[in-house]
Amino acid sequence: MAVLKGNAVVGQAGGPTVVINQSLVGVIQEVQKHPQIETLLGARYGVRGVIDDNFIDLKRQPTEMLEIVARTPASALGATRDKPNDEYCLKIFEGFRKHNVRYFFYIGGNDSAQTANIVNKIAQREKYDLQVVHVPKTIDNDLLVTDHCPGYGSAARFVASAFIGDNLDNRSLPGVKINVLMGREAGFITAASILARRREDDGPHLIYLPERSFLLERFYEDVAAVVSKYGRCLVAVSEGIRDNEGTYWATKLAKQVEKDSFGNVQLSAGAGALGEFLAGMLKQKLPQIKRVRADTYGYLQRSFPGCTSEVDAWEARLVGQMGVSYAVGAGGKDGSVALVRLPGTSYAVGTEFVALDRVAPAKPPFTKGVPCEYISPAGNYITDKFLSYVQPLVGELPRVGWFEQINTEEIWG
Amino acid sequence: MAVLKGNAVVGQAGGPTVVINQSLVGVIQEVQKHPQIETLLGARYGVRGVIDDNFIDLKRQPTEMLEIVARTPASALGATRDKPNDEYCLKIFEGFRKHNVRYFFYIGGNDSAQTANIVNKIAQREKYDLQVVHVPKTIDNDLLVTDHCPGYGSAARFVASAFIGDNLDNRSLPGVKINVLMGREAGFITAASILARRREDDGPHLIYLPERSFLLERFYEDVAAVVSKYGRCLVAVSEGIRDNEGTYWATKLAKQVEKDSFGNVQLSAGAGALGEFLAGMLKQKLPQIKRVRADTYGYLQRSFPGCTSEVDAWEARLVGQMGVSYAVGAGGKDGSVALVRLPGTSYAVGTEFVALDRVAPAKPPFTKGVPCEYISPAGNYITDKFLSYVQPLVGELPRVGWFEQINTEEIWG
Repeated sequence: MAVLKGNAVVGQAGGPTVVINQSLVGVIQEVQKHPQIETLLGARYGVRGVIDDNFIDLKRQPTEMLEIVARTPASALGATRDKPNDEYCLKIFEGFRKHNVRYFFYIGGNDSAQTANIVNKIAQREKYDLQVVHVPKTIDNDLLVTDHCPGYGSAARFVASAFIGDNLDNRSLPGVKINVLMGREAGFITAASILARRREDDGPHLIYLPERSFLLERFYEDVAAVVSKYGRCLVAVSEGIRDNEGTYWATKLAKQVEKDSFGNVQLSAGAGALGEFLAGMLKQKLPQIKRVRADTYGYLQRSFPGCTSEVDAWEARLVGQMGVSYAVGAGGKDGSVALVRLPGTSYAVGTEFVALDRVAPAKPPFTKGVPCEYISPAGNYITDKFLSYVQPLVGELPRVGWFEQINTEEIWG
Repeated sequence: MAVLKGNAVVGQAGGPTVVINQSLVGVIQEVQKHPQIETLLGARYGVRGVIDDNFIDLKRQPTEMLEIVARTPASALGATRDKPNDEYCLKIFEGFRKHNVRYFFYIGGNDSAQTANIVNKIAQREKYDLQVVHVPKTIDNDLLVTDHCPGYGSAARFVASAFIGDNLDNRSLPGVKINVLMGREAGFITAASILARRREDDGPHLIYLPERSFLLERFYEDVAAVVSKYGRCLVAVSEGIRDNEGTYWATKLAKQVEKDSFGNVQLSAGAGALGEFLAGMLKQKLPQIKRVRADTYGYLQRSFPGCTSEVDAWEARLVGQMGVSYAVGAGGKDGSVALVRLPGTSYAVGTEFVALDRVAPAKPPFTKGVPCEYISPAGNYITDKFLSYVQPLVGELPRVGWFEQINTEEIWG
């Protein structure tokens, strides 16, 4: 194939991460090196910007602003939750044809890979030369093929840091504390809470992922056992926990809230309600426990500035740069940039350009969950093997100090 | 009065902050300079440790650990929520007498100042020479006399950082986002969300404090007006908002949840429920708004490591050191260490030793709220005057970048 000359579109989609702009700036940087890419159009609010003809000229942005944007959380171009069907994708394609767009870089998760794949197939059918590249991003860490996803390391870092603080909080004022974490389908974010452990009796003491059934009776037993051992209990729960029939507890709860007469009070029964529900049930079933509290970390996990993993930021930049590099050298092949953990290194990554069909397949599984080997046999904790996987992605966490207990007898001794 | 020779007790009480151990280490450091203080006893779990004879010898802790403990969130000695009455305080006093304790440093908020005051009066009545010092700490920033409270600057920094991220999140995926923040009586923490604003259209767009009545109808109007102007709305709400009869919305909600038949679902109706409630009501009343979400920041506000205000850490150390310094030089006067903002400086603080009766008075007001001049006349926003008050306590926040919108016509020029 001859050198593909024309314009490029880059877009961002789905829930924000704190490093998604690193990938965007990676694309901008790398595009400068390839004169066959004439104008670099930033689509406002994902592919919606292509349809609405709403673009930003990314080659003409003040240079000094680029590194600041890279370190800024959430999508600088705006994002969309639209899940385009074939008709929608045809409109995107028409937008590309109108502006002689020959390169399309879409930064996002599984939905974005699917969109990229459909647009790519339309271009092939229409015999229009278009180089489509998916640049991975998701705090959920659930994309196929890639070792891990840019955005995850920083979300994991936030959660681990939060649990360090919450464990100390729970130590100073003992009781049961439940934290509900993001992850409808995959428990990677929740699993990262284990990084907070420093001492044998540190929390989290129980970790529940969507990959295992969550049974209330079992939960009460687990908590009672931890409280009787340590006098307190810190729990990490995925928002996506399900009962043994595979129904989300959050959905069950929402239905119950809807069904029951509830006066003039309208509850939205979001993730926040799940924490309140679990705390409420514990208070009822284990009345001997004095303090039971629940928090839901919510959007903080994907947008909190100042708690970014350096490795994550670096890798997010890398996949953006490599997306352009692969596009220019791919000779017409579509693809997604995957991170590869290099064997025989303490931790180093490379990238690989994999076909879109592998990342956005036509048949399930569309995403991946936490592998069995990372989950304890009892299904309420995480294995050391996961620690080796996650630690390099998160970096060094805040150090924590404590006093040595010197007994009163020794003091007066 | 002659030099008071004997042992000292230091304790920590109430909800944790990320700098409360700075004050503790400040006490430990300063005590080294005064040989008349023989043993420094760290009471485990506040004054409960005095009654249980549960102490740590703080002069014999590994030196290298002290600075690490200082930077560690939450009470290293453990804390208590006990609110001692006269009988309880008499037991504390007996514990002191038993161990020849002549100095008592109590790090905490208003309840701790009250405890310190009662114990002090018992000692006076018993003609037992005891030097009682209250060292201020509370994220709520509601103590009398002092310009501000150690612990507040870091909580404010966490909230401001979180709103920077959440505002960007809300920009990339527009909708209504409600964040419920700590502060039952005082709105200082919630008010700090205003520090997140960089651009004219940045959130938070609405800020509701416990110092003003919160009326639902007014809330719907406020949100609708912001959404029609900006296409989105970011809201900061104190957990302590009340209706126009002075009843907490959280309490009303809890009563409603308790009263209504609610199947087998037990909700705890904590602060998390308030956010879900406000989001649910908005969805019902303003169905034209597509996305409404609520988060409750919860304990993260008081325990998140790695987001500490340097000024706050420094001042927390200072009040601990000065507590000892005042105690040794006070000649029998009890007191609390207050921070004083020095006039004629951009920002510098000194300290003052004020009588316990002023910080822990017998009659209300026991605490202070956000002054009128810091709240907008409409009661749904914060004034610039508050910004000047709070900015120095929080320090420099993460920088945020954005692109210049260059219209499509200009691109294709």
